[in-house]
Amino acid sequence: MGQWDRFLEPYKQAVDELKIKFKGMRAQYEIENVHSPIEFVTGRVKPLASIYDKCLEKGVSFEPSRKLAEELQDIAGLRIMCQFVDDIETVVNQLRMRNDLRVIEEKDYIAKNKESGYRSYHMIIEYPVQTVHGEIQILAEIQIRTLAMNFWASIEHSLNYKYKGLFPQEIQLRLKRAAEAAFSLDEEMSQIRDEVREAQKYFSEYKET
Amino acid sequence: MGQWDRFLEPYKQAVDELKIKFKGMRAQYEIENVHSPIEFVTGRVKPLASIYDKCLEKGVSFEPSRKLAEELQDIAGLRIMCQFVDDIETVVNQLRMRNDLRVIEEKDYIAKNKESGYRSYHMIIEYPVQTVHGEIQILAEIQIRTLAMNFWASIEHSLNYKYKGLFPQEIQLRLKRAAEAAFSLDEEMSQIRDEVREAQKYFSEYKET
Amino acid sequence: MGQWDRFLEPYKQAVDELKIKFKGMRAQYEIENVHSPIEFVTGRVKPLASIYDKCLEKGVSFEPSRKLAEELQDIAGLRIMCQFVDDIETVVNQLRMRNDLRVIEEKDYIAKNKESGYRSYHMIIEYPVQTVHGEIQILAEIQIRTLAMNFWASIEHSLNYKYKGLFPQEIQLRLKRAAEAAFSLDEEMSQIRDEVREAQKYFSEYKET
Amino acid sequence: MGQWDRFLEPYKQAVDELKIKFKGMRAQYEIENVHSPIEFVTGRVKPLASIYDKCLEKGVSFEPSRKLAEELQDIAGLRIMCQFVDDIETVVNQLRMRNDLRVIEEKDYIAKNKESGYRSYHMIIEYPVQTVHGEIQILAEIQIRTLAMNFWASIEHSLNYKYKGLFPQEIQLRLKRAAEAAFSLDEEMSQIRDEVREAQKYFSEYKET
Repeated sequence: MGQWDRFLEPYKQAVDELKIKFKGMRAQYEIENVHSPIEFVTGRVKPLASIYDKCLEKGVSFEPSRKLAEELQDIAGLRIMCQFVDDIETVVNQLRMRNDLRVIEEKDYIAKNKESGYRSYHMIIEYPVQTVHGEIQILAEIQIRTLAMNFWASIEHSLNYKYKGLFPQEIQLRLKRAAEAAFSLDEEMSQIRDEVREAQKYFSEYKET
Repeated sequence: MGQWDRFLEPYKQAVDELKIKFKGMRAQYEIENVHSPIEFVTGRVKPLASIYDKCLEKGVSFEPSRKLAEELQDIAGLRIMCQFVDDIETVVNQLRMRNDLRVIEEKDYIAKNKESGYRSYHMIIEYPVQTVHGEIQILAEIQIRTLAMNFWASIEHSLNYKYKGLFPQEIQLRLKRAAEAAFSLDEEMSQIRDEVREAQKYFSEYKET
Repeated sequence: MGQWDRFLEPYKQAVDELKIKFKGMRAQYEIENVHSPIEFVTGRVKPLASIYDKCLEKGVSFEPSRKLAEELQDIAGLRIMCQFVDDIETVVNQLRMRNDLRVIEEKDYIAKNKESGYRSYHMIIEYPVQTVHGEIQILAEIQIRTLAMNFWASIEHSLNYKYKGLFPQEIQLRLKRAAEAAFSLDEEMSQIRDEVREAQKYFSEYKET
Repeated sequence: MGQWDRFLEPYKQAVDELKIKFKGMRAQYEIENVHSPIEFVTGRVKPLASIYDKCLEKGVSFEPSRKLAEELQDIAGLRIMCQFVDDIETVVNQLRMRNDLRVIEEKDYIAKNKESGYRSYHMIIEYPVQTVHGEIQILAEIQIRTLAMNFWASIEHSLNYKYKGLFPQEIQLRLKRAAEAAFSLDEEMSQIRDEVREAQKYFSEYKET
């Protein structure tokens, strides 16, 4: 257990730092009275049980090692939720611009969503953590999505654990309908987007008096 | 300013305490491997500018006073977000059961939603705060809603500030369509609810190994 | 493990709530521009290993039970640090006044310090926690002390674990000298107390402009 | 006010990030079962009223500007508290080693304490903050001290505000005696240091079983 604690500590540190940093972006937009593309931010270190599963799946030996750190790119995971679909692009551009992390891979499951209906934008980044023994580089996965995408994903994730991806037809149908409902909420939101943005600006200015 | 700070301090205290308490409910469900009806909890003390507006609207004089404390029941505001529509009832029942607060009014804008399309369950509670000068009773408003309801409400709230409730027909139409999309997401979620709940249970049990 | 998690959960909840409450007292004093008798607040749930040791010592069976909850009164522990020795009395009086907890025992190790040199004021309280299954009463121990007392106590605590209370004479002598140095710091602080308090008041008023 | 908010925002961000980072150092020592040279960490952005005073004192115009950012090096302030005097050196070395900040000045008020009796180790650092408009460099002051040093400093700070440094002889004498008491507590602690460190190690290992 001690070995795993030591191995996971820099991941925990990275998650804590990145959460503070991404929440800070939101605060900056608010101070400047601009619509924030970031609604909220969550983060987690992958639980040991899920690391174990992933190791089985990938054929990597379940022990704290450099190999495991390279193969499992989502031990540190951040999630950024957006109000509108096109806020996602703004966030992606912001992340590419930062000097404190290096984007090493991007997967756009929105332009081209997964068969399952999953929609999200993924970035794998390299992030330097300063430890008491010197700097080490950590991989982290950042998922960027709207609230509706997140909603659907959390449901699919739960069901997946039960059915191991082999959904009965009934469930499959319902999941599809939920995905459509989530998609259509995003669509309606996009329609109303410019109005809301302008109103939010007005709203913040108003509050300041 | 000092007068307002002193007046608002117990409200801030109430919000902090209630947030810890409601988040604690979520933690308890998780430890017991049961689906938590609480997804997340937010809270805020009403900003002075909004207190000012509300005073104008209600014809109450804008000064820290017992009168104002009685008339403005949402100076302390808590929001509890749920995954499924029928989680809301579970939360409401839990709150009625607590000995550390007293429910003094309930408004069900879900069974009978507002003309605007707003859906949410509101409770006004009385909550005792211990100050260094003794106990005082504080009113607080708790809003309980699904994520989709919350989504729609935050948009309507922004637009309302701009148009003061007098939406152009175009906006009105779009708001209505967004409300329908949010409603239909909630409907689809309810259809799939029992499946997800069982899967979540399975999911948590699995993680424990 | 699941059993212990469930047993300890309300203690964790109590510690979180009491920390927020005692920190709130400090905030109130500050808003009123009065010297705060509370410098800072910490809290913890007793680690399982220490619960195990205490069970051995007390001859209580090591399992989550009503008996254990009655015998171990410090499973939930809060610590309140004060700037001056006589702030401790102010805090004690404040705690006696609160309606959200019930003091059931007090031990004054300052008026009459332990042979070891340990100084601190202890209160055992009963605190109601609202769980999803209803209200339960929790015992908690509150230690109130100056920073100098705390300093000495943390050192004695570490050494105690190594020597099991049987200190070599050399160590005993050094501990005694450290206790005297801590005591004399508290004495000097008391001498200067009224000056500092008045200055703190002046200080806060000044800042407000 | 909006101008100052925008000017101070990156300082707030720097303080939040550095707090998380320095607290993380503590966590790493604990996981490795080694005595942590860091006891606790605090941080603050200098209040506007104090910025105003400092501007007067330094003859800098009181407005958000590059000039002000260069002259006032402690707008972002961090404080690291240590248990033992010689932990301070360990912390200083750790900070010099980090790649995420650049030390630009060090002042050792311990080897050579101020006339007033003030003891502390100061570092001025440059720290890059990523804003939504790109990276900017921020100056921050880090004060490293023992709890006893901190104790004395907080008292002297309060009195200074009242007397503007012109202490009556009576006060001066008492402050001097308090400084001596703080110093002698640090001395006694140093004497007992190795014993405590070894015991802490033993203590943590014990807990792990």
